[in-house]
Amino acid sequence: MTADTITAADIRINARWLIPMEPANAVLDHQAVLVQGERIAAVVSQDEADARYRAKETIDLPNHVVLPGLINMHGHAAMSLFRGMADDLPLMTWLNDHIWPAEGAFVSETFIADGTQLAMAEMLRTGTTTFSDMYFFPEIVAQLAKDAGMRAQVCFPLLDFPTPWGAGPDEYLSKGEDFILQWQDDPFIMPAIGPHAPYTVSNEPLTKAVALSRSTGTPIQMHLHETAFEVADALEKTGKRPIERMAGLGVLGPNTQCVHMTQIDDSDIQLLKSTGAQVIHCPESNLKLASGLSPVQKFRDAGINVAIGTDGAASNNDLDLFGELNTASMLAKVVADDATALSAHDALAMATIQGAKALGRSHELGSLEAGKLADIIAVDLGDPFLQPVYDPASHLVYSNHGRQVSHSWINGVPQVQEGTLTRIDVPDLMLRVRSWADRIREQQIS
Amino acid sequence: MTADTITAADIRINARWLIPMEPANAVLDHQAVLVQGERIAAVVSQDEADARYRAKETIDLPNHVVLPGLINMHGHAAMSLFRGMADDLPLMTWLNDHIWPAEGAFVSETFIADGTQLAMAEMLRTGTTTFSDMYFFPEIVAQLAKDAGMRAQVCFPLLDFPTPWGAGPDEYLSKGEDFILQWQDDPFIMPAIGPHAPYTVSNEPLTKAVALSRSTGTPIQMHLHETAFEVADALEKTGKRPIERMAGLGVLGPNTQCVHMTQIDDSDIQLLKSTGAQVIHCPESNLKLASGLSPVQKFRDAGINVAIGTDGAASNNDLDLFGELNTASMLAKVVADDATALSAHDALAMATIQGAKALGRSHELGSLEAGKLADIIAVDLGDPFLQPVYDPASHLVYSNHGRQVSHSWINGVPQVQEGTLTRIDVPDLMLRVRSWADRIREQQIS
Repeated sequence: MTADTITAADIRINARWLIPMEPANAVLDHQAVLVQGERIAAVVSQDEADARYRAKETIDLPNHVVLPGLINMHGHAAMSLFRGMADDLPLMTWLNDHIWPAEGAFVSETFIADGTQLAMAEMLRTGTTTFSDMYFFPEIVAQLAKDAGMRAQVCFPLLDFPTPWGAGPDEYLSKGEDFILQWQDDPFIMPAIGPHAPYTVSNEPLTKAVALSRSTGTPIQMHLHETAFEVADALEKTGKRPIERMAGLGVLGPNTQCVHMTQIDDSDIQLLKSTGAQVIHCPESNLKLASGLSPVQKFRDAGINVAIGTDGAASNNDLDLFGELNTASMLAKVVADDATALSAHDALAMATIQGAKALGRSHELGSLEAGKLADIIAVDLGDPFLQPVYDPASHLVYSNHGRQVSHSWINGVPQVQEGTLTRIDVPDLMLRVRSWADRIREQQIS
Repeated sequence: MTADTITAADIRINARWLIPMEPANAVLDHQAVLVQGERIAAVVSQDEADARYRAKETIDLPNHVVLPGLINMHGHAAMSLFRGMADDLPLMTWLNDHIWPAEGAFVSETFIADGTQLAMAEMLRTGTTTFSDMYFFPEIVAQLAKDAGMRAQVCFPLLDFPTPWGAGPDEYLSKGEDFILQWQDDPFIMPAIGPHAPYTVSNEPLTKAVALSRSTGTPIQMHLHETAFEVADALEKTGKRPIERMAGLGVLGPNTQCVHMTQIDDSDIQLLKSTGAQVIHCPESNLKLASGLSPVQKFRDAGINVAIGTDGAASNNDLDLFGELNTASMLAKVVADDATALSAHDALAMATIQGAKALGRSHELGSLEAGKLADIIAVDLGDPFLQPVYDPASHLVYSNHGRQVSHSWINGVPQVQEGTLTRIDVPDLMLRVRSWADRIREQQIS
């Protein structure tokens, strides 16, 4: 070994365990991740790192498992300001009597900014490095995520009716196109088209959305088959299952993310499979709103890519993706009537590499491999109440919660260090959250 | 107000919110709990406490919700040493190929002592003040719980076959009777009879267990209707559903706790109702082993008392009862096809007053009322990532995890203070756990 074989790196992360996600099911001992600039330079044994690399900064994580940053593929970030406001209600009551009136009263640019920052803080703290958002004022969400150095797919809303962001479909599509053009080359922000649901968007705007998606290469994300009522109602009114109608309109394809997908029959599976559409599973929201069960293992067996999302904090009521993985894995077993369904590694894949696939970004996100972007998290398994540790993947999914996340980096930049957020001013954020909460509480009581 | 109206107390706990559990669904602001000796002396407004009480020690909890200590009604404490050892497997494979061989190799008095202490530490840290245990060497578990000042129902095992604790049913029953006589008057320990399951205990020992239960007033706790296979197999072999056979043997009654209760039909509901038997719901274990779904709301609607348990850490994989409540409440909604099923308050009742009822101890446990035993916990809702708080009950069930527990008292004695255990030497415990883990890991690999 001579001096000229030494390579410089910005950061060296020494991990007790490493779960790279590619190859699947691997758990490696005593690895080093070398980060240079915004990318992973190498993933090697600590011995090899000693011999071949010299890093400006070394972080020793002797009780930790290091893995790719989590990808939360569905949410409504600013709704974190409505966390726990209206529980134990079915979807349409929850929307009609609580959420939509509250949105009418409060949603504004500053509400979106403060609520989104609250959500980003919670997501960063619990291991998410990329999130997808579908809500109002996407330009504000995009700017906030970029300013915080967080990766985000930001879907602009599309509905038949007016909202605080627009008067109707034409305005949504026109503002949305500008939004796409403004952000489509940004390294942190992935603009997307967010038709709300089959029952809130009619055929004409959907057709225009498909055209916009194709002309700009922009993904579509849509709530689809969320409840039994949605499917039954569509069958009654149109004679078609919602997904069938979407297929007819050209909505389905590899660039389309179908969120929820409960009430699934074999024809639905075939449509998802033949079009290459993405499924985004939101188990806790589906349970809590009694929406239904999504057959995750069936999707997997059919070769359909399944990613995972927390949904908004108003229907969950947290944004901890590790908790969501726990629920997803346990639930998939009972739904499949098979305890081997959706193993711990399978669940982790949903939140990492399969999320990256759903975004069309698996060439540079979702696993720890040389050349990929340095979106990395570490989870501390040294906690007494997590002992003993036989299999760190098991612990991440079945025993952990997101608060054990000790470190994260996005694009090679530290976001969480020893459990503390480095780029969001939490005390200042709390003052703004308290002020919103006081106003919302008053409106709910009156 | 004159001086002679002042009453002395040992501890005054000032709570931002108080959820007393009796009356149901109440959330009170700015209350004080006064503790004198082992009991609650009063629950009053802070103003009234100022006027009427003088406490030796005052604990201010300005961002906290105070509620009764949680009651974890089913588990196998020492199995925490097997946490995460064998995941993603169906019940019988998990038992036959992993758990029973590991138990054969390792279960001893010291294994039970160290594993139980690990479980008690995790349970205390996450808000449990009373737990039920069904495992080997009950006399060791009872002594450890008493030494730690923790309340426990300790079920001695009863099976047809030999285990490390006995050669067969006669020895289990004989040792068990001694165990009952030794502990039945202890303030912390509630001895109980633990026939493992219908498929592992035959009629003769079950009949003797019923006689022992009746002559001593001792509860029976039994795994019942855990899986579809159990029910189908019993029907094939005996022509009876397991619960029907138990009813015929006299096993069912108000003093009998039926653990799991999946695969339920109307006749099962009728039997539970007519006998007054208790149901212990273990949702995460049922999901993770793909055992089945328990219709919690149907039980509730029929007036059957339902308590909750985590089951052992080997099949869960944690002992955090707040996490279990989250799963229970979300799952009950989908199972009932009704988002209003098992509200946050209903879930909290399962882990407090309904647990106390299942134990036959609701006159002195399970709610915060003057005269009851001072088993009290506080959960800190001041955490930034739990904001905003509109309804503390919602947060406890849907956004919280047990690590937010900041304080607990059992029998008026502090067990957790500012998140730290006061009566278990955690570093010493960790040395013993590490030693067991090394040996178990070696056996699993070989």
